[in-house]
Amino acid sequence: MILEPINNLVELCAQKGVNHAILSPGSRCAPITLAFVRHPEIHSRTISDERSAAFIALGMAQQYESPVALVCTSGSAAYNYAPAVAEAFFQQIPLLVITADRPPEWIDQWDGQTIRQTDIYGKHVKGSFTFPDEYTHPDKLWHANRITNEAINLAMQYPSGPVHINIPLREPFYPEKNESFVFNSKVKNIEMLQGSASLSDDSKQKIASKLKNFNRILIVPGQQRPNEKLKTVLNNITKAGNAVVITDTICNLQSEETVNFHDHFLGKEHIEEKLQPDLILSFGKSIISKNLKLFLRKSKAEHWHIQESGQSPDTYQSLTQTIYCSAIEFLNFVENQIQSDSEFVSNWKSLDQSIKNSLPTLLSNAEFGEYRAVSTVLKSTPDRSKLHLANSMTVRYVNFLGARAQEVICNRGTSGIDGSNSTAVGCAMTTKESVTLITGDLAFFYDRNAFWHNYDTPNLRIILLNNHAGGIFRLIDGPAKQPELEEFFETTQALNASNLCKEFDFDYNLVHDEEGLDLALEDFYKSSLKPKLIEIKSNSSKNAEILKHIKAEISKKLENF
Amino acid sequence: MILEPINNLVELCAQKGVNHAILSPGSRCAPITLAFVRHPEIHSRTISDERSAAFIALGMAQQYESPVALVCTSGSAAYNYAPAVAEAFFQQIPLLVITADRPPEWIDQWDGQTIRQTDIYGKHVKGSFTFPDEYTHPDKLWHANRITNEAINLAMQYPSGPVHINIPLREPFYPEKNESFVFNSKVKNIEMLQGSASLSDDSKQKIASKLKNFNRILIVPGQQRPNEKLKTVLNNITKAGNAVVITDTICNLQSEETVNFHDHFLGKEHIEEKLQPDLILSFGKSIISKNLKLFLRKSKAEHWHIQESGQSPDTYQSLTQTIYCSAIEFLNFVENQIQSDSEFVSNWKSLDQSIKNSLPTLLSNAEFGEYRAVSTVLKSTPDRSKLHLANSMTVRYVNFLGARAQEVICNRGTSGIDGSNSTAVGCAMTTKESVTLITGDLAFFYDRNAFWHNYDTPNLRIILLNNHAGGIFRLIDGPAKQPELEEFFETTQALNASNLCKEFDFDYNLVHDEEGLDLALEDFYKSSLKPKLIEIKSNSSKNAEILKHIKAEISKKLENF
Repeated sequence: MILEPINNLVELCAQKGVNHAILSPGSRCAPITLAFVRHPEIHSRTISDERSAAFIALGMAQQYESPVALVCTSGSAAYNYAPAVAEAFFQQIPLLVITADRPPEWIDQWDGQTIRQTDIYGKHVKGSFTFPDEYTHPDKLWHANRITNEAINLAMQYPSGPVHINIPLREPFYPEKNESFVFNSKVKNIEMLQGSASLSDDSKQKIASKLKNFNRILIVPGQQRPNEKLKTVLNNITKAGNAVVITDTICNLQSEETVNFHDHFLGKEHIEEKLQPDLILSFGKSIISKNLKLFLRKSKAEHWHIQESGQSPDTYQSLTQTIYCSAIEFLNFVENQIQSDSEFVSNWKSLDQSIKNSLPTLLSNAEFGEYRAVSTVLKSTPDRSKLHLANSMTVRYVNFLGARAQEVICNRGTSGIDGSNSTAVGCAMTTKESVTLITGDLAFFYDRNAFWHNYDTPNLRIILLNNHAGGIFRLIDGPAKQPELEEFFETTQALNASNLCKEFDFDYNLVHDEEGLDLALEDFYKSSLKPKLIEIKSNSSKNAEILKHIKAEISKKLENF
Repeated sequence: MILEPINNLVELCAQKGVNHAILSPGSRCAPITLAFVRHPEIHSRTISDERSAAFIALGMAQQYESPVALVCTSGSAAYNYAPAVAEAFFQQIPLLVITADRPPEWIDQWDGQTIRQTDIYGKHVKGSFTFPDEYTHPDKLWHANRITNEAINLAMQYPSGPVHINIPLREPFYPEKNESFVFNSKVKNIEMLQGSASLSDDSKQKIASKLKNFNRILIVPGQQRPNEKLKTVLNNITKAGNAVVITDTICNLQSEETVNFHDHFLGKEHIEEKLQPDLILSFGKSIISKNLKLFLRKSKAEHWHIQESGQSPDTYQSLTQTIYCSAIEFLNFVENQIQSDSEFVSNWKSLDQSIKNSLPTLLSNAEFGEYRAVSTVLKSTPDRSKLHLANSMTVRYVNFLGARAQEVICNRGTSGIDGSNSTAVGCAMTTKESVTLITGDLAFFYDRNAFWHNYDTPNLRIILLNNHAGGIFRLIDGPAKQPELEEFFETTQALNASNLCKEFDFDYNLVHDEEGLDLALEDFYKSSLKPKLIEIKSNSSKNAEILKHIKAEISKKLENF
């Protein structure tokens, strides 16, 4: 059974730059699966666990900056995509989610693998479409073609994100021996040219005149992929002392010029007094640092957010102006028009410098634990590589440790621990550079099906911080005081990665101390035929002590600031 | 921070029979978690992977026939419940899904672990509720109490199913040292008495007079839990030759009297001619046998479906009458009023008997593979135990093999492979009897996080049919003919369970043949401190051959029927 509209869908994917598909096994989806597999310009892989499949697709789409197609069969398979669909929605990563479905007459009739798939991803897709269930009337062919064009264009349109096409199919699902798949290169392709919002001269004048009222300007970029042009203009601004640029590790715009150690000195009242901005300029998506968020939320500054289009969030409870244009256009325009008070700039810079100077000694004097281990690992990680950080403590540790040369990736759309492994695997499938995943034990074992497939990822490197628990709960005051800490918050878990590494044929190294880690790192980034994993064993309560100790030392140093 | 409405929610759970909770770690949900953990009449467990957590809760709720509470933090955690929520919805199993959420002002503001949780389970819950986000006005306390009563009652009301309460919470999440949890036993409990639909004398008369028009009556029970009263009346009906009762293994009503081997002889035209019913009486939920479904859909019979209330499905495309009363009331009433043609009854019975007589010899003459292995295992399985069957081939093999004494459980709500392990684990947590999970390798490895927790399930027994692929695809004609069979349909996978058994400390036995299996089964059901697993290695294409061979032998035997 070969269906022309499905072949056309796949042909349009190829024409519109959707050149990768992640399929999951199933029978109802066979006409879609076979069309993807047989299309000469699309690379298809199959992943059995749909939850991992979707995060792998997300990891790929993030790198390609174009949609990756997901294909699954009818029933609960579709729901296993949902966590990654939500992550893609909030991280604005394009995904083309294609689910096979029963035809409408069979819904709710207690037949196998039949659920209510229409609009199944609710408010977490940019659009949700249902294909016709047969194609006898010519308008139905037009409808299927229009849906395909609309869905793929919508996924890519700024801000990009996931879209869903639900495709009802009747038996038979498989072609006969004499049937062959023909892809029509002349299929109607409704192309999309994405314009970019430009500010009028009037708007520019308005901005310029408003800007004169501010002289303590903080620029706060949110999560985004690396962007050299943005980095250059931000460096120029900060070198000239025109504003302070505060960069969390996930904004991929860190440099020697930006403020990178803010998480260490914010949160202290006597210091925050001297750092108060009167204008916050933000662009990009979320930030990590809770201290920074709370600082900005307490401040009385105005907040201007710059983005191309879409809903503008009020992350700091102070939004007064949304500017709909690209960050680079805005920053190029204001580069020489902003001017911050020199004391304001130097307060930030000297605090940042003071942490930068003292942290290495504090770390090397500290006991060995996760904190020092992450610092040691980062020194070995090649500059030209990708760094995927799991949520909870991992991304926070890296954020403490200053500027990174590598592209930093983290699922901060929903900040879940459910798909870090898979996202890193997807990323590793797009590049020959090494991809380092740093993760904690809960996130790691949660998403272990990321590795359950038949594809090589020899460039994957994993640093597993195993404290046998969700250590973050020990680091926040509330849960640490409860008698239920270990069972119900940290959820102590006994596993180490040795069996998993045997199972998936990973190179495995277990280390307990700095010497072991140094030794393990010697060959870690040498090229290999299989993925490598270093498990760093540490104690959750000792990790908490070390972090507290370093914080206390820093507080002491900052007392007289 | 102790919130009275949350304590009241938990107190009402206890009062209404929700005595078990499955929690997943998180900080925003802490006020809910702590209230559940500290309530003296609720047993709480924590499971880190929310997908498994929800299927474990489902496996428990199915046995208790009362809702189990699920509690997770905000963000994508909630979406990981979705596959089990859909299964619970279609299998009509009560679940009380409680998700912590950000308060409304923080939705879409790019803060961590914040998604759009309202109505997140779409059309797969019986009801979806949102708690007030604070409780200053007395009507808000009434609202929270009313929601709690309504949600739990709704979950239990026939047909039972999952309900969702979303609870927005602001910091702080943890109680201070001097705060203690007080549960108010006098909290307003809106009790529910569930009436049962009874037929009026008029309706009974109408049924009686209609019934006289039919003399080839098939009774087809769908999936349900064991029910001795139903079994007795069905046995009486069939002993008297008043109707033919066809029982798939999941209906838990099989006996020596019912037709259990229909899957072997249906699908053959010359036979089906002699088996045509003029009335189908059905009750319960879904059936498995595709041959039976297709047979009923082709027939010209009328179809009456009996259920207490709710939407009545037309599974056989022949529904003409829905009777809203309990199956037991209906069957007790019609027991002596139905009367089938004796040739019709004897055709069914003799076919059934003929397969029953010949199958054991065919199996013992066949090569060793999954089919024989399942048959051997079932002979050892204690009668007083639970049998959880994974979807795809496992449940089909067992369905081929006739009447079971054990309670048979299978996720046939959505027929997914995503939660079989977890459902069996949940079931094992409710009983001291042994719980045997029979599963294939894809379902088994898919849901391996079922075993990632700190609770003992020494009564769990697992039979893993490992053919290193989704063998079902080789058994259906379409995919078996495609060159993509192995990579994209069967999805060949290399794992065996030895590493997993080491990891989770299961007793492990790998067998390749009948002798090995017999030996492994000798001690298998002896009580032990840890779960036991027998991995039966077989070859996917040989399994297909064996099945085809046995089918062919049966066809030969049936040629002259």
